[in-house]
Amino acid sequence: MNVEKKRLLMPIRLFLCSLMLMSVAQAEDPLPSWADTSPKQAILDFVAKVSVPNGKDFVPEQDRLAVFDNDGTLWPECPMPFQIAFVIDEVKRLAAEQPELAKDPMVKAALEGDFKALFAGEKHDGFMKIMALTHSGMSSDEFSRRVQSWFSKAEYPPLGTSYGEATYQPMQEVISLLRSKGFQVAIVSGGGVDFMRQFSEDVYGVSPEWVLGSSADVVFKLQDDVPTFVKQASNLYINDKVGKSVRIYQQLGRRPIACFGNSDGDQSMLEYTTIDNPYKSLGVIIHHTDGQRECEYDSKPPFSGKLITALEEAPKRRWVVVDMKQDWEAVFSGQ
Amino acid sequence: MNVEKKRLLMPIRLFLCSLMLMSVAQAEDPLPSWADTSPKQAILDFVAKVSVPNGKDFVPEQDRLAVFDNDGTLWPECPMPFQIAFVIDEVKRLAAEQPELAKDPMVKAALEGDFKALFAGEKHDGFMKIMALTHSGMSSDEFSRRVQSWFSKAEYPPLGTSYGEATYQPMQEVISLLRSKGFQVAIVSGGGVDFMRQFSEDVYGVSPEWVLGSSADVVFKLQDDVPTFVKQASNLYINDKVGKSVRIYQQLGRRPIACFGNSDGDQSMLEYTTIDNPYKSLGVIIHHTDGQRECEYDSKPPFSGKLITALEEAPKRRWVVVDMKQDWEAVFSGQ
Repeated sequence: MNVEKKRLLMPIRLFLCSLMLMSVAQAEDPLPSWADTSPKQAILDFVAKVSVPNGKDFVPEQDRLAVFDNDGTLWPECPMPFQIAFVIDEVKRLAAEQPELAKDPMVKAALEGDFKALFAGEKHDGFMKIMALTHSGMSSDEFSRRVQSWFSKAEYPPLGTSYGEATYQPMQEVISLLRSKGFQVAIVSGGGVDFMRQFSEDVYGVSPEWVLGSSADVVFKLQDDVPTFVKQASNLYINDKVGKSVRIYQQLGRRPIACFGNSDGDQSMLEYTTIDNPYKSLGVIIHHTDGQRECEYDSKPPFSGKLITALEEAPKRRWVVVDMKQDWEAVFSGQ
Repeated sequence: MNVEKKRLLMPIRLFLCSLMLMSVAQAEDPLPSWADTSPKQAILDFVAKVSVPNGKDFVPEQDRLAVFDNDGTLWPECPMPFQIAFVIDEVKRLAAEQPELAKDPMVKAALEGDFKALFAGEKHDGFMKIMALTHSGMSSDEFSRRVQSWFSKAEYPPLGTSYGEATYQPMQEVISLLRSKGFQVAIVSGGGVDFMRQFSEDVYGVSPEWVLGSSADVVFKLQDDVPTFVKQASNLYINDKVGKSVRIYQQLGRRPIACFGNSDGDQSMLEYTTIDNPYKSLGVIIHHTDGQRECEYDSKPPFSGKLITALEEAPKRRWVVVDMKQDWEAVFSGQ
């Protein structure tokens, strides 16, 4: 081939080369922390099907809503849910400032880590008391400062990292994959909404209006002519079980097409998402099977959040059950 | 000039021409239905200042939240709020199907348009009864169908248009302007959220999660294995006055920098938006001064929603008061 011909072929080669590079980039695995087992394939298949234009399962972008439980689904809830670690640390901080608080038997139980006493009784009166102590009677700004301060310093004992670094890497990858395909991602957690909103943007990239959680009354007033919300303990809305579906309906006003949870508390939103949905949908249950890298539990969880009926229902509803031990090659980022 | 030179100058001319066209487009008035009076200037100034990068009043895009009341702010509430027109029409429809309903004195009052009877007493028991009749005891899907059916057929009597066409053109222009400058627009109304979400996307381009309104309990269940929300009359949350600020805080978790309202029911969210906000903020009150083109009222509104204290507070808080008669060149689209 002469020089002139070679020169003429150059643009064609460049074009072909760029096509090849593109296909390499497209082939890059969006879920590298997932083992090549059926759950990974189910997630990839679903995402591909709903996002390919003109496909029979195509879902318009504005209807691509994915909801995630938080504790036990996006990050651990063992040895205890992170918000409970916050509550205990807060009780310690408050008791150091106001020693008379320790006269209260439930404060004493919290200081001693006596969870049996705190969670005694059907309504967990002891725990509700220290929740009220640490989550109400202050302005929302003051509460935000306390959470942020704790979150910036506290360590997650099993890993020795910050709590924000203790998220499940495979789930972070799922969130990124969904976002790259035009999904809106919402967190629908039993945790307190005011607690979660302090870190949801940094940790998951989820802005406050897409974080749904438990809440109680708030009083608005001009205090010294400054708009102030004062957190109350009354009218607690526990965002769990059917409460999760109701909150999604009332707050977001649209139906998810993908739902990720890990306990019977998520069963209602798995049902809402996947049963009789005119769109193709995906339900996923994270099953904590890895006692070595994380924790092993289902019917006997470290705190609340049993997984019994949702697991039984999974085959009938075609929910994908993720066996953490088998289906996740890494659990935490940096492993 | 010879032909060759002219040909060489052509690209330069095309470039200059496109620059000129661009500057014409930029200079196009984004608020053509507004008279050239101070409210228009205040809105344009605010929007320019918060959106010009590196300016001292610049607000990052994710914090540009604007909240709008609906009835009397984005569309009329005279001769009656549109949702009340829906309620009356629904009572008529139901009474035609179930004649025994008309034995109820409050249903009779609704059929006869006897608002005095319906709104008698401090708690408006009569009206609450027909609200419960038309807004609860059915599935959310059934309710949505009823609203959509009504909305597609009903006429707004003063204009002879559909209700969806009876929005204020100047306010639609404000919404478009804000969106073009990266604002997120939310509706925060005393109207029922399930009612408003049936048209908010079509009429205002506001998707359901950005519509905040009054609501009551909802029960979630699998009915014949179909996920179903059944609307209840219990625990009514009236999204008015301080309730509006509380809802913004609890549902959106972020503070607005612009707020548009028309009654004392909006005063709380005007305060939340504008007092002691670290960002530059804007509060706007629509004052119904135009009895010819619309309706004239403030302290004596056609239904609820007095405007007294917010108007008194406006100068101190530097809220912009829009005199509809003087400040709007057109009221409705198509005028």
